[in-house]
Amino acid sequence: MDAEIISVGTEIVLGQIINTNAAYLANRLTQLDLPATYQTTVDDQSQRLERVINHALTRAQLVFVCGGLGPTADDITMPTVAKTLGKELQTDEEHWKWIQKTFEQRQIKMEPENIRQAQYPRGGEPLANPVGLALGCWYETKGKVVVVLPGPPAEFKAMVEKSLVPKLQQYFQTRKQITSRTLNFLGRPESQLMDEIEGATNDIPGISITSYVQPTAIQVRLTVRDLPVIEAEEKIDQAQKAILAVEEPFFFGVGDDLTLAKVVVEQLKKRGWKLTAAESLTGGMFQSAICSVPGASTVFNGGFVTYAASAKEKLLGIPHATIDRYGVVSSETAATMAEGCQRKLNVEVGIGFTGVAGPDMLEGQPAGTVWIGLAMKGRSTKTVQLHLASYVGRQAIRTLSVQYGLQLIYH
Amino acid sequence: MDAEIISVGTEIVLGQIINTNAAYLANRLTQLDLPATYQTTVDDQSQRLERVINHALTRAQLVFVCGGLGPTADDITMPTVAKTLGKELQTDEEHWKWIQKTFEQRQIKMEPENIRQAQYPRGGEPLANPVGLALGCWYETKGKVVVVLPGPPAEFKAMVEKSLVPKLQQYFQTRKQITSRTLNFLGRPESQLMDEIEGATNDIPGISITSYVQPTAIQVRLTVRDLPVIEAEEKIDQAQKAILAVEEPFFFGVGDDLTLAKVVVEQLKKRGWKLTAAESLTGGMFQSAICSVPGASTVFNGGFVTYAASAKEKLLGIPHATIDRYGVVSSETAATMAEGCQRKLNVEVGIGFTGVAGPDMLEGQPAGTVWIGLAMKGRSTKTVQLHLASYVGRQAIRTLSVQYGLQLIYH
Ligand SMILES: O=C(O)c1ccc[n+]([C@@H]2O[C@H](COP(=O)([O-])O)[C@@H](O)[C@H]2O)c1
Ligand SMILES: O=C(O)c1ccc[n+]([C@@H]2O[C@H](COP(=O)([O-])O)[C@@H](O)[C@H]2O)c1
Repeated sequence: MDAEIISVGTEIVLGQIINTNAAYLANRLTQLDLPATYQTTVDDQSQRLERVINHALTRAQLVFVCGGLGPTADDITMPTVAKTLGKELQTDEEHWKWIQKTFEQRQIKMEPENIRQAQYPRGGEPLANPVGLALGCWYETKGKVVVVLPGPPAEFKAMVEKSLVPKLQQYFQTRKQITSRTLNFLGRPESQLMDEIEGATNDIPGISITSYVQPTAIQVRLTVRDLPVIEAEEKIDQAQKAILAVEEPFFFGVGDDLTLAKVVVEQLKKRGWKLTAAESLTGGMFQSAICSVPGASTVFNGGFVTYAASAKEKLLGIPHATIDRYGVVSSETAATMAEGCQRKLNVEVGIGFTGVAGPDMLEGQPAGTVWIGLAMKGRSTKTVQLHLASYVGRQAIRTLSVQYGLQLIYH
Repeated sequence: MDAEIISVGTEIVLGQIINTNAAYLANRLTQLDLPATYQTTVDDQSQRLERVINHALTRAQLVFVCGGLGPTADDITMPTVAKTLGKELQTDEEHWKWIQKTFEQRQIKMEPENIRQAQYPRGGEPLANPVGLALGCWYETKGKVVVVLPGPPAEFKAMVEKSLVPKLQQYFQTRKQITSRTLNFLGRPESQLMDEIEGATNDIPGISITSYVQPTAIQVRLTVRDLPVIEAEEKIDQAQKAILAVEEPFFFGVGDDLTLAKVVVEQLKKRGWKLTAAESLTGGMFQSAICSVPGASTVFNGGFVTYAASAKEKLLGIPHATIDRYGVVSSETAATMAEGCQRKLNVEVGIGFTGVAGPDMLEGQPAGTVWIGLAMKGRSTKTVQLHLASYVGRQAIRTLSVQYGLQLIYH
């Protein structure tokens, strides 16, 4: 079974965006034992796309056409696929009604072209889009399958997970079982993590281990093929145990959509605890990560962004003398920030972030020097210093600080 | 002139890594007015690669083959390119001596296979690798050019910049000028924006207009080819004027890396003003956006995340009666949040965010209902209600709220 991923988009061809969709789908297909031997990218040009699809059908049985499902004239994918297959477009009337209703509710004027987002080649099967307007499509022809998927990454992922993967599993159900599990790690370079994991699982045969770097985690997926579920799960348990014997400090849980923020919110919820934060260089990013988790309000009432020293004094009651004596980039300031916000909101956990996001030095410290303070009920306040590489840049220094902060609470 | 980028690598095909090299090269080629109309990825398999190269030569004049130049058996690119071109490999003796010397100096045992990194198809021209061992290659054949480049991103970029771009410039030196400018917009759906822009610029010939959706802006790029810079700039000025006559309210500036946060920080800096915020559903994301801008500390001392009603009362001094009477999702609460944080920090601008990020309803309001309050020195406080589509999800509702908030301050 050969698969080919075709990405459609002038912005990819011009190098304006990086094609993350293709990597995402390729990874999922690999897990389903359907590796996409070819990947092709072409611009929003109907004739070229038609030639590319036809060429793909000469060398692959499964062809994925990704992107170009918007309502405008340069969104040519669905009509081009239909033309290539020699079919007309048909409209999913129910979906079209839903689109119209959605526009009405939002009080936005709808263009008649939006009907295109409810259309697919006659004889195909629409694929639901859980988070956007445009339908995808599954089309079987002469033992081959052509699949159409939307371009925006959020819609792409949602349709892959919710509509495509189940469909593929069903279509290939005669194939043997695939069992897999995703472990999430943070705080170790991927290459090192994978080297160590390979070492630890060397003597467990029949398990394949792949990694995938996400912004919020390094995901490691353990896959066992062609074994009954129970045996496969046992083998995966064994591998997980061997891996965690080495990597426990960097592990934060099992699951495809897990984030450390989610784990921390759950953990606090179980204890009935609340947390707060005082953020300097992270500027609200930590609290925003917490609030990204549905249900955050059960563990988080609020907190502070204390960027300037004056705000640290005024909002948290940190003595002027502390900052004066130790500087803002210091263990003492991080600790008093953590304790200050904890006290102000009268909650069990307070965390403080202070440091140098860059680009320039601050108080003689290079960008990447960060102090995190953690005040937790029943424990004495602790602080941690990070030395992040300054070349990763201001945003990455802030993001990594937030991730380390979450890890500190988690452990 | 059509170009094609072929990426070679099983790890790309399996989705283990994201193909950033292709995007990098595509972008550089676009700047040289040599857009790579096709991009193809194939695994480390010689026969397949040969077929892909042959197919590329049927539709492109410039073919780039990227990756697979290591010394091991699965590095098949250079021999495969040679075979496809019907040539033998020849060794660059000087480079081979240099490789041997390098290994000696590093006291690493060298394998005889390393000679492969000094080889290229006879009749071609080696491309220097400023940061690695493997040579690249430039090969001209029947009016077409085949270029071979290494896979590791650092080597790839270095060879592109130092060896390839100068070579391309020399080869295509007769070509004319490209002039372009990027306009940044927010607050209008891309399709609608582009339709209106097309309408507005219909009668300006010789200008191409493309859009690119970034998380922080819709970028619209105006490009004029083959005209002297001054004339081209005049044409672009004319188009910009026509566009802004219609889209002014959604425009926030010119430039490739511009964000609205940057514009707002600059604007406040010019006035010598400071801003603060009280965030509910956005949970710190607005302040984090401000702090992402280098130099933010000149306009931002700090602010509040007031997620729970209790925090709104305690940290901002909002009367219990206000929230009780109007609810948190209300104009009144947004207004008093804005005024409360402004007063607490004694600054010129205070902004408040409150609303329903979802997934569930809150106070009988659907997810996507958001109130933003703005208190600004010398003006009366104003509030705006957003009705965002609930299906875009919790994160997008929060991100869009932040962008609207920035727009509110900017205008
Ligand atoms: O705007 C507010 O005052 C506010 C404060 C806290 C939570 N909310 C919203 O209330 C809902 C439940 O919050 P959560 O964090 O528990 O999922 C969700 O839609 C949030 O956006 C809203
Ligand atoms: O940690 C702090 O207390 C702190 C508060 C404000 C700013 N900084 C850092 O100071 C530097 C200058 O800040 P900015 O926002 O003006 O670019 C930059 O490295 C920030 O990360 C650090």
